[in-house]
Amino acid sequence: MNVFVVGVGLIGGSMAKDIKRLHPEAKIYGVDTNVIHLEEAMALDLIDTKAGYEDLGLADVVIVSIPVNAMLTEIPKILDQINDDCVVLDAGSTKAALCKSLDDHEKRRNFLACHPIAGTEFSGPSAAIENLYQGKTNIICEVEKTAFKLQERALALFQQLGMRIRYMNPEAHDKHIAYVSHLSHISSFMLGKTVIDKERNERDIFDMAGSGFESTVRLAKSSPAMWAPIFEQNKENVVDSLDEYIENLQAFKELLVKNDYEGIYDEMNNTNKIKEILKGIPLNK
Amino acid sequence: MNVFVVGVGLIGGSMAKDIKRLHPEAKIYGVDTNVIHLEEAMALDLIDTKAGYEDLGLADVVIVSIPVNAMLTEIPKILDQINDDCVVLDAGSTKAALCKSLDDHEKRRNFLACHPIAGTEFSGPSAAIENLYQGKTNIICEVEKTAFKLQERALALFQQLGMRIRYMNPEAHDKHIAYVSHLSHISSFMLGKTVIDKERNERDIFDMAGSGFESTVRLAKSSPAMWAPIFEQNKENVVDSLDEYIENLQAFKELLVKNDYEGIYDEMNNTNKIKEILKGIPLNK
Repeated sequence: MNVFVVGVGLIGGSMAKDIKRLHPEAKIYGVDTNVIHLEEAMALDLIDTKAGYEDLGLADVVIVSIPVNAMLTEIPKILDQINDDCVVLDAGSTKAALCKSLDDHEKRRNFLACHPIAGTEFSGPSAAIENLYQGKTNIICEVEKTAFKLQERALALFQQLGMRIRYMNPEAHDKHIAYVSHLSHISSFMLGKTVIDKERNERDIFDMAGSGFESTVRLAKSSPAMWAPIFEQNKENVVDSLDEYIENLQAFKELLVKNDYEGIYDEMNNTNKIKEILKGIPLNK
Repeated sequence: MNVFVVGVGLIGGSMAKDIKRLHPEAKIYGVDTNVIHLEEAMALDLIDTKAGYEDLGLADVVIVSIPVNAMLTEIPKILDQINDDCVVLDAGSTKAALCKSLDDHEKRRNFLACHPIAGTEFSGPSAAIENLYQGKTNIICEVEKTAFKLQERALALFQQLGMRIRYMNPEAHDKHIAYVSHLSHISSFMLGKTVIDKERNERDIFDMAGSGFESTVRLAKSSPAMWAPIFEQNKENVVDSLDEYIENLQAFKELLVKNDYEGIYDEMNNTNKIKEILKGIPLNK
Protein backbone atom coordinates (compact mmCIF):
# COMPACT_ATOMS: atom_id res chain seq x y z
CA MET A 1 0.00 0.00 0.00
CA ASN A 2 1.35 3.41 -1.00
CA VAL A 3 0.19 6.16 1.35
CA PHE A 4 0.83 9.81 0.56
CA VAL A 5 0.66 12.32 3.39
CA VAL A 6 0.27 15.87 2.11
CA GLY A 7 1.17 18.10 5.05
CA VAL A 8 3.40 16.21 7.48
CA GLY A 9 2.39 17.90 10.76
CA LEU A 10 0.56 16.83 13.90
CA ILE A 11 -2.46 15.36 12.10
CA GLY A 12 -0.85 13.76 9.02
CA GLY A 13 2.27 12.73 10.91
CA SER A 14 0.30 11.01 13.68
CA MET A 15 -1.75 9.15 11.11
CA ALA A 16 1.42 8.10 9.26
CA LYS A 17 2.90 6.82 12.50
CA ASP A 18 -0.06 4.53 13.20
CA ILE A 19 -0.38 3.33 9.61
CA LYS A 20 3.25 2.33 9.61
CA ARG A 21 2.79 0.33 12.79
CA LEU A 22 -0.39 -1.33 11.52
CA HIS A 23 0.92 -1.93 7.98
CA PRO A 24 4.68 -2.49 8.14
CA GLU A 25 4.66 -3.17 4.39
CA ALA A 26 3.11 0.23 3.56
CA LYS A 27 5.30 2.87 2.00
CA ILE A 28 4.69 6.38 3.30
CA TYR A 29 5.39 9.28 0.93
CA GLY A 30 5.61 12.76 2.44
CA VAL A 31 4.66 15.91 0.54
CA ASP A 32 5.04 19.35 2.09
CA THR A 33 5.80 22.88 0.91
CA ASN A 34 7.77 23.33 4.13
CA VAL A 35 11.19 21.76 3.37
CA ILE A 36 12.24 21.80 7.02
CA HIS A 37 9.11 19.91 8.05
CA LEU A 38 9.80 17.35 5.37
CA GLU A 39 13.35 16.80 6.64
CA GLU A 40 12.04 16.57 10.19
CA ALA A 41 9.42 14.01 9.13
CA MET A 42 12.20 11.91 7.52
CA ALA A 43 14.41 12.20 10.59
CA LEU A 44 11.50 11.24 12.85
CA ASP A 45 10.68 8.24 10.61
CA LEU A 46 7.16 9.51 10.00
CA ILE A 47 7.66 9.05 6.27
CA ASP A 48 9.78 6.71 4.16
CA THR A 49 10.49 9.13 1.36
CA LYS A 50 9.93 12.68 0.18
CA ALA A 51 7.68 13.05 -2.84
CA GLY A 52 5.83 15.57 -5.02
CA TYR A 53 2.48 15.77 -6.80
CA GLU A 54 4.16 14.21 -9.86
CA ASP A 55 4.44 10.94 -7.87
CA LEU A 56 0.76 10.83 -6.91
CA GLY A 57 -0.01 8.27 -9.61
CA LEU A 58 1.54 5.68 -7.25
CA ALA A 59 -0.83 6.42 -4.40
CA ASP A 60 -3.48 4.07 -2.97
CA VAL A 61 -4.41 6.50 -0.22
CA VAL A 62 -3.72 10.24 0.02
CA ILE A 63 -4.17 11.95 3.39
CA VAL A 64 -4.41 15.73 3.08
CA SER A 65 -3.68 17.53 6.35
CA ILE A 66 -2.97 21.17 5.50
CA PRO A 67 -4.69 24.44 6.47
CA VAL A 68 -8.30 24.51 5.27
CA ASN A 69 -7.74 27.40 2.85
CA ALA A 70 -4.96 25.45 1.13
CA MET A 71 -7.32 22.45 0.88
CA LEU A 72 -9.49 24.40 -1.56
CA THR A 73 -6.65 24.92 -4.02
CA GLU A 74 -4.64 21.73 -3.43
CA ILE A 75 -7.21 18.92 -3.31
CA PRO A 76 -8.42 19.56 -6.91
CA LYS A 77 -4.78 19.40 -8.09
CA ILE A 78 -4.20 16.22 -6.10
CA LEU A 79 -7.33 14.61 -7.55
CA ASP A 80 -6.07 15.54 -11.03
CA GLN A 81 -2.89 13.52 -10.46
CA ILE A 82 -4.12 10.33 -8.79
CA ASN A 83 -5.03 7.04 -10.49
CA ASP A 84 -8.66 5.94 -10.61
CA ASP A 85 -8.29 3.47 -7.75
CA CYS A 86 -6.91 5.94 -5.19
CA VAL A 87 -8.86 7.47 -2.30
CA VAL A 88 -8.09 11.00 -1.12
CA LEU A 89 -9.04 11.91 2.48
CA ASP A 90 -8.87 15.27 4.16
CA ALA A 91 -8.76 16.07 7.87
CA GLY A 92 -10.03 19.64 7.87
CA SER A 93 -12.00 21.30 10.65
CA THR A 94 -14.51 22.82 8.18
CA LYS A 95 -16.43 20.84 5.60
CA ALA A 96 -18.99 22.94 3.71
CA ALA A 97 -16.66 25.08 1.56
CA LEU A 98 -14.48 22.12 0.62
CA CYS A 99 -17.36 19.81 -0.28
CA LYS A 100 -18.97 22.56 -2.34
CA SER A 101 -15.73 23.33 -4.19
CA LEU A 102 -15.26 19.68 -5.17
CA ASP A 103 -18.84 19.04 -6.25
CA ASP A 104 -18.09 19.24 -9.95
CA HIS A 105 -14.63 17.70 -9.95
CA GLU A 106 -14.50 14.73 -12.31
CA LYS A 107 -12.74 12.68 -9.62
CA ARG A 108 -15.22 13.59 -6.84
CA ARG A 109 -15.83 9.86 -6.31
CA ASN A 110 -12.18 9.46 -5.30
CA PHE A 111 -12.54 11.92 -2.43
CA LEU A 112 -13.84 11.28 1.11
CA ALA A 113 -14.54 14.37 3.27
CA CYS A 114 -13.40 13.65 6.84
CA HIS A 115 -12.87 15.42 10.12
CA PRO A 116 -11.12 13.29 12.72
CA ILE A 117 -11.84 15.07 16.05
CA ALA A 118 -8.37 14.65 17.46
CA GLY A 119 -5.37 16.81 18.05
CA THR A 120 -3.35 18.68 20.60
CA GLU A 121 -2.41 22.35 20.88
CA PHE A 122 0.97 21.59 19.28
CA SER A 123 1.84 21.49 15.57
CA GLY A 124 4.47 20.34 13.10
CA PRO A 125 6.04 16.87 12.56
CA SER A 126 7.57 16.81 16.05
CA ALA A 127 4.04 17.06 17.51
CA ALA A 128 3.01 13.76 15.85
CA ILE A 129 2.11 11.08 18.39
CA GLU A 130 1.05 7.45 18.28
CA ASN A 131 -2.55 6.46 18.93
CA LEU A 132 -3.83 10.02 18.54
CA TYR A 133 -6.96 8.65 16.85
CA GLN A 134 -7.70 5.78 19.23
CA GLY A 135 -11.27 6.12 20.53
CA LYS A 136 -11.86 9.42 18.75
CA THR A 137 -14.76 10.38 16.50
CA ASN A 138 -14.28 10.79 12.77
CA ILE A 139 -17.00 12.77 11.07
CA ILE A 140 -17.56 11.87 7.45
CA CYS A 141 -19.57 14.13 5.15
CA GLU A 142 -21.36 13.31 1.90
CA VAL A 143 -20.27 9.67 2.10
CA GLU A 144 -22.62 8.80 -0.77
CA LYS A 145 -20.50 10.87 -3.16
CA THR A 146 -17.48 8.59 -2.69
CA ALA A 147 -17.05 5.37 -4.69
CA PHE A 148 -18.17 2.44 -2.56
CA LYS A 149 -14.94 0.42 -2.68
CA LEU A 150 -12.94 3.53 -1.80
CA GLN A 151 -15.25 4.22 1.17
CA GLU A 152 -14.53 0.67 2.26
CA ARG A 153 -10.76 1.14 2.06
CA ALA A 154 -10.91 4.35 4.07
CA LEU A 155 -13.30 2.95 6.68
CA ALA A 156 -11.12 -0.11 7.19
CA LEU A 157 -8.20 2.19 7.87
CA PHE A 158 -10.20 4.32 10.32
CA GLN A 159 -11.32 1.20 12.12
CA GLN A 160 -7.71 0.05 12.45
CA LEU A 161 -6.81 3.48 13.85
CA GLY A 162 -9.51 2.96 16.49
CA MET A 163 -11.91 5.69 15.36
CA ARG A 164 -15.69 5.63 15.59
CA ILE A 165 -17.48 7.05 12.58
CA ARG A 166 -20.36 9.49 12.41
CA TYR A 167 -22.00 10.61 9.19
CA MET A 168 -23.22 14.18 8.87
CA ASN A 169 -23.92 16.72 6.17
CA PRO A 170 -21.27 19.44 5.75
CA GLU A 171 -23.56 22.27 6.89
CA ALA A 172 -24.57 20.49 10.10
CA HIS A 173 -20.92 19.63 10.75
CA ASP A 174 -19.78 23.23 10.40
CA LYS A 175 -22.57 24.53 12.60
CA HIS A 176 -22.03 22.07 15.46
CA ILE A 177 -18.25 22.23 15.35
CA ALA A 178 -18.37 26.03 15.71
CA TYR A 179 -19.79 25.49 19.21
CA VAL A 180 -17.75 22.56 20.48
CA SER A 181 -14.42 23.42 18.92
CA HIS A 182 -14.02 26.75 17.16
CA LEU A 183 -15.61 28.79 19.98
CA SER A 184 -13.36 27.09 22.58
CA HIS A 185 -10.32 28.26 20.65
CA ILE A 186 -11.52 31.87 20.56
CA SER A 187 -12.49 31.87 24.24
CA SER A 188 -9.05 30.54 25.05
CA PHE A 189 -7.13 32.95 22.81
CA MET A 190 -9.02 35.97 24.15
CA LEU A 191 -8.59 34.82 27.76
CA GLY A 192 -4.85 34.60 27.12
CA LYS A 193 -4.87 38.03 25.53
CA THR A 194 -6.82 39.60 28.40
CA VAL A 195 -4.35 38.30 30.95
CA ILE A 196 -1.24 39.08 28.87
CA ASP A 197 -2.47 42.66 28.31
CA LYS A 198 -2.93 43.05 32.06
CA GLU A 199 0.46 41.55 32.77
CA ARG A 200 2.16 44.26 30.75
CA ASN A 201 1.28 46.68 33.50
CA GLU A 202 1.15 44.36 36.45
CA ARG A 203 4.26 42.36 37.25
CA ASP A 204 4.21 38.88 38.71
CA ILE A 205 0.64 38.10 37.78
CA PHE A 206 1.63 34.79 36.21
CA ASP A 207 3.23 33.58 39.41
CA MET A 208 -0.32 33.42 40.66
CA ALA A 209 -1.67 31.31 37.83
CA GLY A 210 -2.57 27.71 38.60
CA SER A 211 -3.60 24.65 36.71
CA GLY A 212 -7.12 26.01 36.15
CA PHE A 213 -5.78 28.92 34.15
CA GLU A 214 -3.48 26.60 32.23
CA SER A 215 -6.38 24.39 31.27
CA THR A 216 -8.58 27.24 30.02
CA VAL A 217 -5.82 28.89 27.94
CA ARG A 218 -4.24 25.69 26.62
CA LEU A 219 -5.79 26.17 23.16
CA ALA A 220 -4.25 29.66 22.91
CA LYS A 221 -1.03 27.84 22.00
CA SER A 222 -2.64 26.63 18.76
CA SER A 223 -1.26 27.48 15.33
CA PRO A 224 -2.64 30.74 13.84
CA ALA A 225 -1.81 29.48 10.32
CA MET A 226 -4.20 26.58 10.92
CA TRP A 227 -6.88 28.51 12.73
CA ALA A 228 -7.29 31.81 10.84
CA PRO A 229 -8.50 29.94 7.71
CA ILE A 230 -10.86 27.81 9.82
CA PHE A 231 -12.51 30.92 11.24
CA GLU A 232 -12.68 32.39 7.73
CA GLN A 233 -14.40 29.35 6.24
CA ASN A 234 -16.80 28.98 9.14
CA LYS A 235 -17.34 32.69 9.69
CA GLU A 236 -21.13 32.73 10.00
CA ASN A 237 -21.41 29.90 12.49
CA VAL A 238 -18.45 31.17 14.48
CA VAL A 239 -19.94 34.67 14.68
CA ASP A 240 -23.26 33.17 15.86
CA SER A 241 -21.56 31.13 18.56
CA LEU A 242 -19.48 34.13 19.65
CA ASP A 243 -22.60 36.27 19.87
CA GLU A 244 -24.26 33.73 22.14
CA TYR A 245 -21.13 33.37 24.26
CA ILE A 246 -20.71 37.14 24.67
CA GLU A 247 -24.40 37.42 25.55
CA ASN A 248 -24.01 34.81 28.29
CA LEU A 249 -20.93 36.56 29.67
CA GLN A 250 -22.79 39.88 29.66
CA ALA A 251 -25.73 38.32 31.47
CA PHE A 252 -23.38 36.84 34.07
CA LYS A 253 -21.81 40.25 34.53
CA GLU A 254 -25.24 41.82 34.98
CA LEU A 255 -26.04 39.34 37.74
CA LEU A 256 -22.79 40.35 39.45
CA VAL A 257 -23.51 44.07 39.04
CA LYS A 258 -27.01 43.54 40.50
CA ASN A 259 -25.56 41.49 43.39
CA ASP A 260 -27.76 38.58 42.38
CA TYR A 261 -25.56 35.84 43.83
CA GLU A 262 -28.42 33.38 43.93
CA GLY A 263 -28.72 33.86 40.18
CA ILE A 264 -24.97 33.33 39.82
CA TYR A 265 -25.18 30.17 41.91
CA ASP A 266 -28.00 28.88 39.71
CA GLU A 267 -26.11 29.60 36.49
CA MET A 268 -23.13 27.63 37.71
CA ASN A 269 -25.22 24.86 39.18
CA ASN A 270 -27.09 24.40 35.90
CA THR A 271 -23.83 24.30 33.99
CA ASN A 272 -22.33 21.72 36.35
CA LYS A 273 -24.15 19.06 34.33
CA ILE A 274 -21.25 19.42 31.90
CA LYS A 275 -19.60 16.88 34.26
CA GLU A 276 -21.86 14.13 33.00
CA ILE A 277 -21.51 15.26 29.42
CA LEU A 278 -17.71 15.37 29.54
CA LYS A 279 -17.55 11.80 30.78
CA GLY A 280 -18.34 10.72 27.24
CA ILE A 281 -15.43 12.60 25.63
CA PRO A 282 -12.28 10.64 24.83
CA LEU A 283 -9.18 12.61 25.83
CA ASN A 284 -5.54 12.75 24.82
CA LYS A 285 -3.31 12.47 27.81
CA MET B 1 0.95 18.48 67.10
CA ASN B 2 -2.83 18.88 67.09
CA VAL B 3 -4.12 20.02 63.71
CA PHE B 4 -7.74 21.07 63.24
CA VAL B 5 -9.15 21.10 59.74
CA VAL B 6 -12.33 23.17 59.52
CA GLY B 7 -13.98 22.14 56.24
CA VAL B 8 -12.80 18.66 55.24
CA GLY B 9 -13.03 18.97 51.45
CA LEU B 10 -10.55 19.02 48.57
CA ILE B 11 -8.33 21.75 50.05
CA GLY B 12 -8.40 20.91 53.76
CA GLY B 13 -8.50 17.16 53.15
CA SER B 14 -5.48 17.24 50.83
CA MET B 15 -3.53 19.26 53.37
CA ALA B 16 -4.50 16.83 56.14
CA LYS B 17 -3.32 13.91 53.99
CA ASP B 18 0.15 15.40 53.52
CA ILE B 19 0.49 16.54 57.12
CA LYS B 20 -0.32 13.04 58.31
CA ARG B 21 2.35 11.57 56.06
CA LEU B 22 4.94 14.17 57.09
CA HIS B 23 4.04 14.11 60.79
CA PRO B 24 2.84 10.63 61.70
CA GLU B 25 2.57 11.75 65.34
CA ALA B 26 0.17 14.60 64.50
CA LYS B 27 -3.46 14.22 65.48
CA ILE B 28 -5.91 15.53 62.87
CA TYR B 29 -9.26 16.81 64.12
CA GLY B 30 -11.99 17.34 61.52
CA VAL B 31 -14.72 19.97 61.89
CA ASP B 32 -17.48 20.32 59.33
CA THR B 33 -21.14 21.35 59.29
CA ASN B 34 -21.68 18.65 56.67
CA VAL B 35 -22.06 15.44 58.71
CA ILE B 36 -21.75 13.22 55.64
CA HIS B 37 -18.45 14.87 54.67
CA LEU B 38 -17.18 14.33 58.19
CA GLU B 39 -18.03 10.62 58.03
CA GLU B 40 -16.40 10.37 54.60
CA ALA B 41 -13.27 12.10 55.91
CA MET B 42 -13.09 9.53 58.75
CA ALA B 43 -13.64 6.63 56.37
CA LEU B 44 -10.96 7.98 54.01
CA ASP B 45 -8.54 8.40 56.94
CA LEU B 46 -8.16 12.10 56.23
CA ILE B 47 -8.87 12.86 59.89
CA ASP B 48 -8.30 10.96 63.12
CA THR B 49 -11.34 12.23 64.93
CA LYS B 50 -14.41 14.40 64.59
CA ALA B 51 -14.41 17.56 66.66
CA GLY B 52 -16.23 20.83 67.30
CA TYR B 53 -15.31 24.43 68.10
CA GLU B 54 -15.45 23.52 71.80
CA ASP B 55 -12.30 21.38 71.26
CA LEU B 56 -10.29 24.18 69.61
CA GLY B 57 -8.37 24.89 72.82
CA LEU B 58 -6.29 21.78 71.99
CA ALA B 59 -5.20 23.08 68.57
CA ASP B 60 -1.63 24.00 67.56
CA VAL B 61 -2.67 24.68 63.97
CA VAL B 62 -6.15 25.34 62.55
CA ILE B 63 -6.64 25.14 58.77
CA VAL B 64 -9.85 26.81 57.64
CA SER B 65 -10.97 25.65 54.20
CA ILE B 66 -14.60 26.65 53.80
CA PRO B 67 -16.41 28.95 51.33
CA VAL B 68 -15.11 32.53 51.60
CA ASN B 69 -18.40 33.95 52.86
CA ALA B 70 -18.40 31.48 55.76
CA MET B 71 -14.80 32.52 56.53
CA LEU B 72 -16.05 35.96 57.55
CA THR B 73 -18.36 34.58 60.21
CA GLU B 74 -16.40 31.51 61.28
CA ILE B 75 -12.79 32.66 61.62
CA PRO B 76 -13.62 35.23 64.36
CA LYS B 77 -15.41 32.46 66.30
CA ILE B 78 -12.48 30.10 65.80
CA LEU B 79 -10.01 32.74 66.99
CA ASP B 80 -12.18 33.25 70.08
CA GLN B 81 -11.77 29.58 71.01
CA ILE B 82 -8.08 28.87 70.40
CA ASN B 83 -5.24 29.09 72.90
CA ASP B 84 -2.64 31.88 72.61
CA ASP B 85 -0.05 29.63 70.98
CA CYS B 86 -2.20 28.41 68.10
CA VAL B 87 -1.96 29.61 64.48
CA VAL B 88 -5.09 29.78 62.32
CA LEU B 89 -4.59 29.65 58.52
CA ASP B 90 -7.16 30.09 55.82
CA ALA B 91 -7.05 28.96 52.18
CA GLY B 92 -9.54 31.33 50.60
CA SER B 93 -9.41 32.64 47.04
CA THR B 94 -10.16 36.23 48.17
CA LYS B 95 -8.18 38.08 50.79
CA ALA B 96 -9.25 41.72 51.15
CA ALA B 97 -12.65 41.25 52.83
CA LEU B 98 -11.31 38.65 55.26
CA CYS B 99 -8.22 40.63 56.25
CA LYS B 100 -10.33 43.73 56.76
CA SER B 101 -12.89 41.90 58.89
CA LEU B 102 -10.20 40.54 61.21
CA ASP B 103 -8.28 43.78 61.63
CA ASP B 104 -9.65 44.53 65.05
CA HIS B 105 -9.89 41.00 66.38
CA GLU B 106 -7.96 40.67 69.63
CA LYS B 107 -6.36 37.45 68.36
CA ARG B 108 -5.39 38.92 64.95
CA ARG B 109 -1.77 37.92 65.66
CA ASN B 110 -2.84 34.26 65.73
CA PHE B 111 -4.15 34.43 62.15
CA LEU B 112 -2.18 34.04 58.90
CA ALA B 113 -4.01 34.96 55.67
CA CYS B 114 -3.07 32.45 52.95
CA HIS B 115 -4.08 31.44 49.46
CA PRO B 116 -2.47 28.24 48.26
CA ILE B 117 -2.88 28.31 44.46
CA ALA B 118 -3.78 24.66 44.13
CA GLY B 119 -6.87 22.65 43.49
CA THR B 120 -8.81 20.65 40.99
CA GLU B 121 -12.33 21.05 39.60
CA PHE B 122 -13.58 18.45 42.10
CA SER B 123 -14.76 19.00 45.66
CA GLY B 124 -15.53 17.21 48.92
CA PRO B 125 -13.39 14.80 51.00
CA SER B 126 -13.23 12.21 48.22
CA ALA B 127 -11.50 14.81 46.02
CA ALA B 128 -8.57 15.11 48.47
CA ILE B 129 -5.27 13.99 46.95
CA GLU B 130 -1.68 13.65 48.12
CA ASN B 131 0.96 16.17 47.09
CA LEU B 132 -1.61 18.69 45.87
CA TYR B 133 0.60 21.50 47.18
CA GLN B 134 3.96 20.27 45.90
CA GLY B 135 5.60 22.98 43.80
CA LYS B 136 2.61 25.33 44.08
CA THR B 137 2.59 28.98 45.09
CA ASN B 138 1.14 30.04 48.43
CA ILE B 139 0.28 33.72 48.64
CA ILE B 140 0.47 35.19 52.12
CA CYS B 141 -1.09 38.55 52.92
CA GLU B 142 -0.31 40.95 55.76
CA VAL B 143 2.35 38.64 57.16
CA GLU B 144 3.50 41.38 59.52
CA LYS B 145 0.21 41.16 61.40
CA THR B 146 0.90 37.58 62.50
CA ALA B 147 3.02 36.77 65.57
CA PHE B 148 6.54 35.92 64.47
CA LYS B 149 6.79 32.45 66.00
CA LEU B 150 3.39 31.52 64.55
CA GLN B 151 4.54 32.70 61.10
CA GLU B 152 7.52 30.40 61.54
CA ARG B 153 5.37 27.41 62.41
CA ALA B 154 3.13 27.96 59.40
CA LEU B 155 6.02 28.57 57.01
CA ALA B 156 7.80 25.40 58.15
CA LEU B 157 4.63 23.48 57.37
CA PHE B 158 4.27 25.09 53.92
CA GLN B 159 7.89 24.28 53.17
CA GLN B 160 7.32 20.64 54.10
CA LEU B 161 4.28 20.59 51.80
CA GLY B 162 6.57 21.80 48.98
CA MET B 163 5.07 25.25 48.46
CA ARG B 164 6.88 28.41 47.43
CA ILE B 165 5.77 31.54 49.22
CA ARG B 166 4.95 34.96 47.85
CA TYR B 167 3.97 37.93 49.98
CA MET B 168 1.39 40.37 48.71
CA ASN B 169 -1.10 42.86 50.07
CA PRO B 170 -4.74 41.70 50.06
CA GLU B 171 -5.87 44.27 47.47
CA ALA B 172 -3.13 43.35 44.98
CA HIS B 173 -3.89 39.67 45.53
CA ASP B 174 -7.59 40.11 44.81
CA LYS B 175 -6.95 42.19 41.71
CA HIS B 176 -4.41 39.81 40.14
CA ILE B 177 -6.29 36.65 41.04
CA ALA B 178 -9.41 38.00 39.31
CA TYR B 179 -7.50 37.74 36.02
CA VAL B 180 -5.61 34.48 36.39
CA SER B 181 -8.23 32.49 38.25
CA HIS B 182 -11.68 33.97 38.72
CA LEU B 183 -12.06 35.05 35.08
CA SER B 184 -11.03 31.57 33.86
CA HIS B 185 -13.85 30.08 35.87
CA ILE B 186 -16.44 32.43 34.38
CA SER B 187 -15.16 31.94 30.82
CA SER B 188 -15.40 28.21 31.34
CA PHE B 189 -18.86 28.23 32.96
CA MET B 190 -20.28 30.46 30.21
CA LEU B 191 -18.67 28.37 27.46
CA GLY B 192 -20.31 25.31 28.98
CA LYS B 193 -23.65 27.14 29.18
CA THR B 194 -23.43 28.33 25.56
CA VAL B 195 -22.86 24.82 24.31
CA ILE B 196 -25.42 23.17 26.59
CA ASP B 197 -28.07 25.71 25.52
CA LYS B 198 -27.33 24.88 21.90
CA GLU B 199 -27.42 21.18 22.58
CA ARG B 200 -30.98 21.43 23.80
CA ASN B 201 -32.07 22.02 20.23
CA GLU B 202 -29.31 20.22 18.39
CA ARG B 203 -28.83 16.55 19.18
CA ASP B 204 -25.47 14.80 19.11
CA ILE B 205 -23.39 17.94 19.40
CA PHE B 206 -21.34 16.47 22.23
CA ASP B 207 -20.29 13.51 20.12
CA MET B 208 -18.25 16.07 18.22
CA ALA B 209 -16.49 17.51 21.24
CA GLY B 210 -12.80 16.72 21.62
CA SER B 211 -10.12 17.19 24.22
CA GLY B 212 -9.82 20.90 23.41
CA PHE B 213 -13.40 21.52 24.47
CA GLU B 214 -12.89 19.40 27.57
CA SER B 215 -9.89 21.47 28.58
CA THR B 216 -11.63 24.82 28.18
CA VAL B 217 -14.78 23.78 30.08
CA ARG B 218 -13.06 21.76 32.80
CA LEU B 219 -13.56 24.51 35.39
CA ALA B 220 -17.31 24.53 34.71
CA LYS B 221 -17.42 21.43 36.92
CA SER B 222 -16.39 23.56 39.92
CA SER B 223 -18.54 23.91 43.03
CA PRO B 224 -21.07 26.81 42.88
CA ALA B 225 -21.17 26.91 46.70
CA MET B 226 -17.44 27.71 46.66
CA TRP B 227 -17.47 30.07 43.71
CA ALA B 228 -20.56 32.27 44.13
CA PRO B 229 -19.12 33.77 47.37
CA ILE B 230 -15.72 34.29 45.70
CA PHE B 231 -17.32 36.30 42.90
CA GLU B 232 -19.31 38.23 45.51
CA GLN B 233 -16.27 39.17 47.57
CA ASN B 234 -14.18 40.07 44.54
CA LYS B 235 -16.99 41.66 42.59
CA GLU B 236 -15.24 44.83 41.42
CA ASN B 237 -12.11 43.15 40.13
CA VAL B 238 -14.09 40.35 38.54
CA VAL B 239 -16.37 42.81 36.75
CA ASP B 240 -13.29 44.70 35.46
CA SER B 241 -11.68 41.53 34.14
CA LEU B 242 -14.97 40.41 32.56
CA ASP B 243 -15.35 43.81 30.87
CA GLU B 244 -11.88 43.49 29.34
CA TYR B 245 -12.52 39.90 28.28
CA ILE B 246 -15.85 40.75 26.65
CA GLU B 247 -14.21 43.71 24.90
CA ASN B 248 -11.51 41.43 23.47
CA LEU B 249 -14.11 38.92 22.29
CA GLN B 250 -16.12 41.72 20.67
CA ALA B 251 -13.01 43.02 18.91
CA PHE B 252 -12.22 39.53 17.64
CA LYS B 253 -15.76 39.24 16.35
CA GLU B 254 -15.47 42.59 14.59
CA LEU B 255 -12.33 41.39 12.81
CA LEU B 256 -14.28 38.34 11.64
CA VAL B 257 -17.25 40.42 10.51
CA LYS B 258 -14.88 42.71 8.56
CA ASN B 259 -13.12 39.68 7.02
CA ASP B 260 -9.83 40.91 8.49
CA TYR B 261 -8.14 37.51 8.68
CA GLU B 262 -4.70 39.04 8.84
CA GLY B 263 -5.83 40.85 11.97
CA ILE B 264 -7.17 37.56 13.34
CA TYR B 265 -3.88 35.84 12.56
CA ASP B 266 -1.98 38.59 14.37
CA GLU B 267 -4.21 38.40 17.44
CA MET B 268 -3.59 34.68 17.74
CA ASN B 269 0.09 34.96 16.93
CA ASN B 270 0.59 37.59 19.64
CA THR B 271 -1.25 35.44 22.15
CA ASN B 272 0.83 32.38 21.29
CA LYS B 273 3.49 33.69 23.67
CA ILE B 274 1.31 32.23 26.40
CA LYS B 275 3.29 29.05 25.57
CA GLU B 276 6.39 30.46 27.20
CA ILE B 277 4.43 31.87 30.11
CA LEU B 278 2.64 28.60 30.82
CA LYS B 279 5.92 26.71 31.05
CA GLY B 280 6.38 28.28 34.46
CA ILE B 281 3.06 27.05 35.88
CA PRO B 282 3.11 23.92 38.04
CA LEU B 283 0.24 21.60 37.15
CA ASN B 284 -1.76 18.89 38.87
CA LYS B 285 -1.92 15.80 36.81
